Amino acid sequence: MRTQVAIIGAGPSGLLLSQLLHKAGVDCVVFERRSPEYVLSRIRAGVLEQGTVDMLEQAGVSERMRKEGLPHDGFTMAVGDTRLRIDLNGLTSGKNVMVYGQTEVTKDLMDAHEARSAQVIYEAENVTPHDFETDHPRVTYEKDGVSHEITCDFICGCDGYHGVSRTSVPKAAITEFEKVYPFGWLGILSYVKPVDHELIYANHPNGFALASMRSETLSRYYIQVPAGTDVNKWSDDALWDELKIRLGAQAAANMETGPTIEKSIAPLRSFVSEPLRFGRMFLAGDAAHIVPPTGAKGLNLAASDIHYLSNGLIEFYGEKSSAGVDHYSQKALSRIWKAERFSWWMTSILHQFPDLGAFNARIQQSEMDYLASSHAAQVSLAENYVGLPF
Amino acid sequence: MRTQVAIIGAGPSGLLLSQLLHKAGVDCVVFERRSPEYVLSRIRAGVLEQGTVDMLEQAGVSERMRKEGLPHDGFTMAVGDTRLRIDLNGLTSGKNVMVYGQTEVTKDLMDAHEARSAQVIYEAENVTPHDFETDHPRVTYEKDGVSHEITCDFICGCDGYHGVSRTSVPKAAITEFEKVYPFGWLGILSYVKPVDHELIYANHPNGFALASMRSETLSRYYIQVPAGTDVNKWSDDALWDELKIRLGAQAAANMETGPTIEKSIAPLRSFVSEPLRFGRMFLAGDAAHIVPPTGAKGLNLAASDIHYLSNGLIEFYGEKSSAGVDHYSQKALSRIWKAERFSWWMTSILHQFPDLGAFNARIQQSEMDYLASSHAAQVSLAENYVGLPF
Repeated sequence: MRTQVAIIGAGPSGLLLSQLLHKAGVDCVVFERRSPEYVLSRIRAGVLEQGTVDMLEQAGVSERMRKEGLPHDGFTMAVGDTRLRIDLNGLTSGKNVMVYGQTEVTKDLMDAHEARSAQVIYEAENVTPHDFETDHPRVTYEKDGVSHEITCDFICGCDGYHGVSRTSVPKAAITEFEKVYPFGWLGILSYVKPVDHELIYANHPNGFALASMRSETLSRYYIQVPAGTDVNKWSDDALWDELKIRLGAQAAANMETGPTIEKSIAPLRSFVSEPLRFGRMFLAGDAAHIVPPTGAKGLNLAASDIHYLSNGLIEFYGEKSSAGVDHYSQKALSRIWKAERFSWWMTSILHQFPDLGAFNARIQQSEMDYLASSHAAQVSLAENYVGLPF
Repeated sequence: MRTQVAIIGAGPSGLLLSQLLHKAGVDCVVFERRSPEYVLSRIRAGVLEQGTVDMLEQAGVSERMRKEGLPHDGFTMAVGDTRLRIDLNGLTSGKNVMVYGQTEVTKDLMDAHEARSAQVIYEAENVTPHDFETDHPRVTYEKDGVSHEITCDFICGCDGYHGVSRTSVPKAAITEFEKVYPFGWLGILSYVKPVDHELIYANHPNGFALASMRSETLSRYYIQVPAGTDVNKWSDDALWDELKIRLGAQAAANMETGPTIEKSIAPLRSFVSEPLRFGRMFLAGDAAHIVPPTGAKGLNLAASDIHYLSNGLIEFYGEKSSAGVDHYSQKALSRIWKAERFSWWMTSILHQFPDLGAFNARIQQSEMDYLASSHAAQVSLAENYVGLPF
């Protein structure tokens, strides 16, 4: 079996890449260790940058998003006594973000693949990239107990942090950068009306809280909890009470509560591996980098990797030029580090840090006070939140 | 002996306050432990914000500054491979800074005091504020072996970090915030032509360097050195060589070298004490806060304290309203913390930190890369550098 581009991983990165390559007439096959149901069961981010929305449009999978997604042109930050609405639209001359769950994006991409009977091989076991340092890379895998091999021009590792792609690279060829935060986010989903029509990010003395949503009837809430917290220690009642405290009196008065349909804790960390290219294998999305969720950059950063990578591959086949694939790693990393910086900064300003110290606590508050007083600082925040240009 | 306002300290804060109060017809006396020659021998900052320039104008001591000062409408930052000119004037719709040494400001203020035979008592020993928690504060001191006492309405502590004013306050009434950096600045003065007509702030792998100036023939250079460095370990030759390395090839090619007329090391730290008012005593300038010199906020922050404090006192005597003095602490601290934030940020981006770690080093570089790519981020930097509004 042979293809032009072998894609490992059928999350949003892999499927978006596959879809864009298909639209441009580039042949590809996607390999996924899990079932479609499992992939869809992973509840993740839900705020799309304008550039990500544009890419979904370009990939022909934007119809449901346009109908069901909620365009947001601002959000609120509350730090200490300072409450500030960030007017994204006004500050960026008309840009917005779109609230639409990653699960929905993945589902739309899956449906598009199914509609055209694209080659997505789910429940492929022991998927392994080989010989990517040569001109003849290949991928082996097993399906229903039978071993298979596919040869290709390129391998794209879109298989997440725990995937096989990055770990197949010799350790000496890769540099990893990491920062672990001393807390996680306890997140819940509940079929209740959102407390506000926009997101509220709060830094309360008890810790961070975020009021978010998936739709006008499905709310997503988060609270900061110490690293290592047992999710079972938080009853629904205790959680709603804590959200009311952290989000403030106005939010508390408007808050609808109800049973939670998902409750889990995600640790927060920052991670980047460099470079993103190893011969004829590329890394993209979570396989190469993780951001803390503050600022919602994870999925969007995966999309911008796919923007650079799909353009490079399409250029390679269409114009017989390797310029795009040659520059992929450098271009993508430049934007990745800016998003890592922003996510780190948003995390820094919005969380309680156990060992911050009195001086740094005042600096944290003064970041917020300066932000509230400065148009330029708000423009800077807004341009990062809606997404820096590709 | 009696006065309306007793000012402790004849540095730029105390003399500027005295001069502004005098202009408004408020009676005051200044007490200084040192001789005028000693005060003038302390070589300090040399970049004045627009607001500080305006205050010197208002105080009637701007004539020589207007002739000899150098208006600067930009400066250069060089971090890693990224070199960026910050167009202060363009980014702030026409604001500049003025390069004019603190020593010169102090001398102009001293001359104005001498010209009007103002009451500045130099070499006053054991100056001590008393009873400032009552309505009858007083200051005692000794001069030429004779004890004196002066009663007043208010005491203004403008006597620096080591001064008696802050240390006279009961410990329980004051909260101190401090951050010590693991390095200092080795500074030199030399009668050579500046390497550039604007300042250059560089973060080289060997450490920070700053090319500054006092005039077109007097250069001021600094390099970052580890805390505890012995200044005698740096010969002039070694210093010039190191400056050429850290400031880069272009600066090295233009650099005139010569004998140094001053060579000293200043440690870097951030410090704020709260509040700034204790009954009928106020703290202003270095008596209440220290910033690291990166960004040149020290003298300017003292000037903005004096802006709020002089206005409050003038209002108190002119309009019989205590609103200004009542709000002094809160208003001044709000601006102080913003300047502390900016000085901390400029210090963070421009220095080598021994224990920074690989991830944070990339964040430092990405701060610079983002700054170079974002107009909004540059506006934010520029508005802080020229001075936030009073």
